[in-house]
Amino acid sequence: MEIKELLYEGKAKKVYNTTDAYTVMVSYKDDATAFNGIKKGTIHDKGKVNNEVSNKMMMYLEEQGVKTHYIRQLNERDTLVKRVDIIPLEVIMRNKAAGSLAKRLGLEEGTLLKRPVLEFCLKDDDLGDPFINDDHILSIELATEEDIVIIKQMARTINALMKTYFEKIDIDLIDIKLEFGRTSTGEIILADEISPDTCRYWDMKTGEKLDKDRFRRDLGKIEEAYMEVYNRIFNQQ
Amino acid sequence: MEIKELLYEGKAKKVYNTTDAYTVMVSYKDDATAFNGIKKGTIHDKGKVNNEVSNKMMMYLEEQGVKTHYIRQLNERDTLVKRVDIIPLEVIMRNKAAGSLAKRLGLEEGTLLKRPVLEFCLKDDDLGDPFINDDHILSIELATEEDIVIIKQMARTINALMKTYFEKIDIDLIDIKLEFGRTSTGEIILADEISPDTCRYWDMKTGEKLDKDRFRRDLGKIEEAYMEVYNRIFNQQ
Ligand SMILES: Nc1ncnc2c1ncn2[C@@H]1O[C@H](COP(=O)(O)OP(=O)(O)O)[C@@H](O)[C@H]1O
Ligand SMILES: Nc1ncnc2c1ncn2[C@@H]1O[C@H](COP(=O)(O)OP(=O)(O)O)[C@@H](O)[C@H]1O
Ligand SMILES: [Mg+2]
Ligand SMILES: [Mg+2]
Repeated sequence: MEIKELLYEGKAKKVYNTTDAYTVMVSYKDDATAFNGIKKGTIHDKGKVNNEVSNKMMMYLEEQGVKTHYIRQLNERDTLVKRVDIIPLEVIMRNKAAGSLAKRLGLEEGTLLKRPVLEFCLKDDDLGDPFINDDHILSIELATEEDIVIIKQMARTINALMKTYFEKIDIDLIDIKLEFGRTSTGEIILADEISPDTCRYWDMKTGEKLDKDRFRRDLGKIEEAYMEVYNRIFNQQ
Repeated sequence: MEIKELLYEGKAKKVYNTTDAYTVMVSYKDDATAFNGIKKGTIHDKGKVNNEVSNKMMMYLEEQGVKTHYIRQLNERDTLVKRVDIIPLEVIMRNKAAGSLAKRLGLEEGTLLKRPVLEFCLKDDDLGDPFINDDHILSIELATEEDIVIIKQMARTINALMKTYFEKIDIDLIDIKLEFGRTSTGEIILADEISPDTCRYWDMKTGEKLDKDRFRRDLGKIEEAYMEVYNRIFNQQ
């Protein structure tokens, strides 16, 4: 299989066509953005960390029976994945209140939620990725009721698996953003990435933030935080 | 039964205790507010219109099998209702896109929704009545899963009944805001009001707005719009 032209460039990754119609190559960049692209920067080696962390998570999830887009890592930054039609939803699972949820409900960051909270945001930069509900999804026909049931079940399962995984390396999974896509056969699978860009990771002992909030909130030691997550994942055995 | 002390003064109504522990008196004011209380004004005779309109709607809904707080109108502005513990949710049913939904989804106002859209907002002025979802409600224990099922069913039924009711008097019910409460026996019933303050009413033929948007958006002829709704309701037979 050969890599062909650039299909799409996002804020954190480039997606390339390949000679196989069912496969694309994802290439992770060091570019970092926040607040719907208003804040821009670079996090040195972020692309490498996120590529390897995400692939490891997808492989783990596959072992646990979750269908993902992961096929094979090519090199430090590039990975082959199943090409999907992305369902334009950011599916957020939250175990503790942080960020927009803390603000919305007037909760202190870190407040334990009685049960994991699922939120849908419409993936639309022009609209600012607005928070939406099931009825909005149905009314603009982004997905069917059956799709929504599947996506919710998968999101809850993935969150539970990831929470347990990170607990073992002393990381508290505060929240996680997921994207799902439809394969050529119509199956809904996990796509995009699972990384410090798309999760909130707090050190279990110190509470230190080990994720993109260090960039969003100018907390410093950004690269160190990403490397810390990388090291805990790959040095645990 | 006698009227006792003021229990609570809201933005549009005062609520008084009565000598009966299960009954309160609601007194409708002419005060109008918008944008979470930032815009303030008076709409002459609004209290009278809303009191009589709301009572008529509650009586109609009762006839159709919907449980409401309505007991008996005392005079132009005052009505006895069943005292409830208000569930602090604004339950919005939308038939066509307008206001915040049009903005959120980037839809033109008046776009027909494939099916009625239900939204929950947390009734909390300090937080700006934020839009929330079922999981938020469960996580802050505002209501149980069973409560949510009942509230959603009631909201959809009420919206369908009201939509048909207003069609007969050439009014297009664009959206409607409902509040529910728990009686002393734990039953969930419709409370608060149904009026041009809490609905969007568009004239079926001209598209003219006959509701509080005339106040919010400084469209003029505010009193006339409220009277028009009143007259269509009370002069139809
Ligand atoms: N398996 C896949 N097939 C096709 N597109 C994908 C797949 N996984 C992720 N994508 C998409 O690749 C694009 C680039 O990713 P990213 O840079 O994170 O984009 P964004 O700026 O939207 O966050 C996104 O639109 C993402 O949804
Ligand atoms: N049947 C009822 N029993 C007790 N309180 C009620 C009942 N119906 C409405 N209320 C409450 O009365 C208060 C006054 O109404 P309103 O002026 O509309 O208040 P707001 O400023 O919150 O919109 C509100 O808190 C409303 O929820
Ligand atoms: Mg992305
Ligand atoms: Mg009110």
